[in-house]
Amino acid sequence: MFLQLSMFLAPHAQADPAPPAKPTSAEVLAQATEADWEQIPAEDLLVMRVADREVVMELSPAFAPKNVQNLLTLVDQRYFDGLAVVRSHDNYVVQWADPAEAPQGSRSLGAAKETVKGEFDRPARKHAMTPLAATDAYADQVGVVDGMPVASDGRRIWLTHCYGMVGVARGNEPDSGNGSSLYVVTGHAPRHLDRNITLVGRVIDGIEVLSAMPRGTGPLGFYESPDQYHLIESVRRVSELPQADRPRWYRLRTDTPTFHALVESKRSRQEDWFLHDAGRIGLCNVPLPRSETPGG
Amino acid sequence: MFLQLSMFLAPHAQADPAPPAKPTSAEVLAQATEADWEQIPAEDLLVMRVADREVVMELSPAFAPKNVQNLLTLVDQRYFDGLAVVRSHDNYVVQWADPAEAPQGSRSLGAAKETVKGEFDRPARKHAMTPLAATDAYADQVGVVDGMPVASDGRRIWLTHCYGMVGVARGNEPDSGNGSSLYVVTGHAPRHLDRNITLVGRVIDGIEVLSAMPRGTGPLGFYESPDQYHLIESVRRVSELPQADRPRWYRLRTDTPTFHALVESKRSRQEDWFLHDAGRIGLCNVPLPRSETPGG
Repeated sequence: MFLQLSMFLAPHAQADPAPPAKPTSAEVLAQATEADWEQIPAEDLLVMRVADREVVMELSPAFAPKNVQNLLTLVDQRYFDGLAVVRSHDNYVVQWADPAEAPQGSRSLGAAKETVKGEFDRPARKHAMTPLAATDAYADQVGVVDGMPVASDGRRIWLTHCYGMVGVARGNEPDSGNGSSLYVVTGHAPRHLDRNITLVGRVIDGIEVLSAMPRGTGPLGFYESPDQYHLIESVRRVSELPQADRPRWYRLRTDTPTFHALVESKRSRQEDWFLHDAGRIGLCNVPLPRSETPGG
Repeated sequence: MFLQLSMFLAPHAQADPAPPAKPTSAEVLAQATEADWEQIPAEDLLVMRVADREVVMELSPAFAPKNVQNLLTLVDQRYFDGLAVVRSHDNYVVQWADPAEAPQGSRSLGAAKETVKGEFDRPARKHAMTPLAATDAYADQVGVVDGMPVASDGRRIWLTHCYGMVGVARGNEPDSGNGSSLYVVTGHAPRHLDRNITLVGRVIDGIEVLSAMPRGTGPLGFYESPDQYHLIESVRRVSELPQADRPRWYRLRTDTPTFHALVESKRSRQEDWFLHDAGRIGLCNVPLPRSETPGG
């Protein structure tokens, strides 16, 4: 009975000394070289200190240039310092904002814009998608661009609402978001939000700080009283931190044979535990590794 | 700016007094009659008291008769009382078990069986599936049976690992699970587990008690020390509770025009907030309402 507990989804090493025909995910990653990884530009990284812990976000200015720019303007003004996580909606999103947000009393946006054009999708020809051989409930084509999950109809391409993706809250008007309130997906991918709201990136470290926050008991998972808020101590660009304190982050390149092998290892799992070979994979089940060391 | 915060995904009532061509989800549910709901048999309901709160599970003996029977034998012996949640794996599962589980020291299974045949899938002809018009990454056909999400290849049918589904942990052997350790999906649907492990039902109330538990820092999200465990005070069949204390639960029938309308309202969302009509829906994004009052 010890095994039952400890072996649940714990793959065993193959007893057979011959190498398996297809490698496991662990084997693919162990065999990856430094060239399979690329450093994420410090300019694209934010560190948020919240609830005495750190969350690292990777931005995607290529997909949302205007919204990322406005967000960075807010960061540079220390707009987020002292704000709070105000919402934790089970199986959906965690959201942060100015809790005093109201016609009167809200924090000034300073040099940032009040309204920013929604960047819901982009011309497909402008992005080199690594296609994923997968059917998808919400799009004709799915794939990856620079380590971010995407979908396309051939003409347009867009970031998708997979777990950990970060977006810009908005009201009913398409330009009513400005980055002063962001959300992160913490449940099953709400793909119906795709093309309806601007995604600006992805949490690459510390998602569990946000995803395990107690669920709000108000409508839509908002917290009902200020003592339930989680304080955001600071949000900083990594590029502005002193060199010695600056974390380096690497992403597994997604335009390589190694990434292809990783996808295949998840499509047809080789670990002994698996009895039925799915032979298929979903977009939001594809691993998109990030690491603080090149080589994972 | 107040709107930006409060209106994120908060649909507005239509200003137009004419009824919309297609109803919203809220309208579909408001218009449902008592006949659209059916009471869940008390025999199929378990109440787990954990971390001083309650979680309600709906079992599916039709899909896993042997495993449900063994689980109920354990419940009747009070096997779970005093056990613990021992694992919280971010974007994956929460699992409970006997923390002392080991060749020596584990709690006796009593009259329950040590090994139970895995019930990973069933003959399709034995279950009346309400098909869902949706493409799916993992299966040729998807749908719903008695309010549970399912997939099929035409010949076999199986419960699917959507958010909140409850399964029987096992080791590498197909019959190595017995219900003494269960897990619940608390992240993006790990559909690669379908047909690999026995699902026995679904959490229908209190999922947030489990899903917001701090993530374990050990391998696979296991807690590393006993002070991190969450005590399971008791697990009871609802049918054994005194009549006065017995909760009644209803599920929206899934073989009705009302359920069809609900699915369509999610496929093409009518709320003002939505600017792009997805026109599509994924299996694990379909709402499967449960309520303590008939009529929702």
